Amino acid sequence: MEKNRLEAFSDGVLAIIITIMVLELRVPAGSDIAVLKPLLPVFLTYALSFIYLGIYWNNHHHLLKAAGRVNGAMMWANLHLLFWLSLFPFVTGWMGENHFTTVPTAVYGTVLLLAAIAYYILQSVIIAGQGCDSKLAAALFQPWISCGIYVLVALLWLVPDRRIERLLAERKD
Amino acid sequence: MEKNRLEAFSDGVLAIIITIMVLELRVPAGSDIAVLKPLLPVFLTYALSFIYLGIYWNNHHHLLKAAGRVNGAMMWANLHLLFWLSLFPFVTGWMGENHFTTVPTAVYGTVLLLAAIAYYILQSVIIAGQGCDSKLAAALFQPWISCGIYVLVALLWLVPDRRIERLLAERKD
Amino acid sequence: MEKNRLEAFSDGVLAIIITIMVLELRVPAGSDIAVLKPLLPVFLTYALSFIYLGIYWNNHHHLLKAAGRVNGAMMWANLHLLFWLSLFPFVTGWMGENHFTTVPTAVYGTVLLLAAIAYYILQSVIIAGQGCDSKLAAALFQPWISCGIYVLVALLWLVPDRRIERLLAERKD
Amino acid sequence: MEKNRLEAFSDGVLAIIITIMVLELRVPAGSDIAVLKPLLPVFLTYALSFIYLGIYWNNHHHLLKAAGRVNGAMMWANLHLLFWLSLFPFVTGWMGENHFTTVPTAVYGTVLLLAAIAYYILQSVIIAGQGCDSKLAAALFQPWISCGIYVLVALLWLVPDRRIERLLAERKD
Repeated sequence: MEKNRLEAFSDGVLAIIITIMVLELRVPAGSDIAVLKPLLPVFLTYALSFIYLGIYWNNHHHLLKAAGRVNGAMMWANLHLLFWLSLFPFVTGWMGENHFTTVPTAVYGTVLLLAAIAYYILQSVIIAGQGCDSKLAAALFQPWISCGIYVLVALLWLVPDRRIERLLAERKD
Repeated sequence: MEKNRLEAFSDGVLAIIITIMVLELRVPAGSDIAVLKPLLPVFLTYALSFIYLGIYWNNHHHLLKAAGRVNGAMMWANLHLLFWLSLFPFVTGWMGENHFTTVPTAVYGTVLLLAAIAYYILQSVIIAGQGCDSKLAAALFQPWISCGIYVLVALLWLVPDRRIERLLAERKD
Repeated sequence: MEKNRLEAFSDGVLAIIITIMVLELRVPAGSDIAVLKPLLPVFLTYALSFIYLGIYWNNHHHLLKAAGRVNGAMMWANLHLLFWLSLFPFVTGWMGENHFTTVPTAVYGTVLLLAAIAYYILQSVIIAGQGCDSKLAAALFQPWISCGIYVLVALLWLVPDRRIERLLAERKD
Repeated sequence: MEKNRLEAFSDGVLAIIITIMVLELRVPAGSDIAVLKPLLPVFLTYALSFIYLGIYWNNHHHLLKAAGRVNGAMMWANLHLLFWLSLFPFVTGWMGENHFTTVPTAVYGTVLLLAAIAYYILQSVIIAGQGCDSKLAAALFQPWISCGIYVLVALLWLVPDRRIERLLAERKD
């Protein structure tokens, strides 16, 4: 019963984060197809962040399924993860509006990295609170891999693709 | 238990989308009844999108009731559907503020169409993940019909009613 | 199980409506206590709408507890009620920002009235879908009374208190 | 079953409050690291309010676990608590944007205090509605302590740290 409420609260926060991001896609002034062009990078960043949050929700779902009882440490580790995820709308909007320039992209990558670390902490807390059993041994391995992928992707983001930048810069001219 | 969480998350996202749309109805500056007039098309679009999202929630509810266990493909197909539905506030606001002119109306129709396709994919994934049983045979038929209606309505939207346009254009003068 | 999802969705929408209203309380520019003064009517309207939505949530809770199975008509009657309730943030913001002048107050009252009618329809649909049993006979009576109170209060709102208006007008000078 | 819905509604409202606060962190205009500097106090206030709301959610969770049946008084005491918590995004934004100056900090502290009082009322209502049993005797003691801490912290906030203020004032120059 306790776990249900932790899940419900996390689902609520994730559902709101994922939906609030769309508010960064501001309704343009004109009614031509041309006014949608400057919104393209914002839309692409939105789609990317949507996928990331989808991955987190998916893994969070599997992680909590493997967890047993909820204790205080788990609650705070979970809130810590939600804190970094709650910054997604902000960094998504900033990166999208600045067409993937270096600093906003690096900040986006940093928030991704901190969320991945928070996920790792949550996972460790769940394992520590349970001891070792077969359920966790199986669950343990898979998030590790995906966690590695996140960190890698986050590092990749720190080196933004110069070609995309140039392409977008040309379009702006 | 798994299915409950998928339902809860979808309900959360749909509830937020449906409520966030009302933020496009911006509080007007004056206090006359006249300041409400330009808000009328936004209000009508809001009501229309509210009905559409109501239909989706209704059908989604019936579809998941027919579904058995939740797998990864189902989760992603569900997120894909939620992605297109999450664009409703944006296209609703754009179409409403531009008084049903051609391009915003076509974009609205396109998002409707993509959501209908995403719904069809989700349904196929649920069927594929289950094999054939009597529950699904019954559920299968009804969403197909409604799905057809969506596509039809979406196509109708691509041909906006010239008379309404003219009426609204006259009112603006 | 079906009813749970209807409740969860309604709770989600009501929770969002109640919380989104606070966004109408815009963060003022200065840091004096004086900048809070023009926000007072907005704050009072917010508190009033919060109480109304609390009453609706409370009664909705009792009504659904008395209801048996959920059918299509009930779902749509419920969405119809949520539609009018979703207009609360808009009318609350408009009435609050215009210091309870006649037109915004009348519009606020109208939305209250339409929500009360929608509640009555939902209740009738639930009764019609169930036949008569002892549970409903008990539940029926109480919402009727509260419904009457709503309509009365809504009518009272249509005649805004001239004294408050004058008081607020003087403060503005 | 009743209690579940009270929990679900409270979780919904708390999840939205916690996430809506991030909207006060407005996407800055430039793409330098320098444009993030003025956002630092807003970010710190956001983190602080996030922790406070986390504490409330945590304690609320434990309090309701100890509670038995839900009655009308409990519902209203709960809504009263949610009302003061719903003002967090407003006071967080105001205090953050004014770099912890006296008045906004005092208002922030006042809302914290009123939320703590509302929590105390909710707790008293739950105890009154139950009589004395062992479950509550245990639960009673711990929230009392945390409640005391809140009030203390709220009082501390009423005396903002002059050194931080000076530091921030120097940075602004």
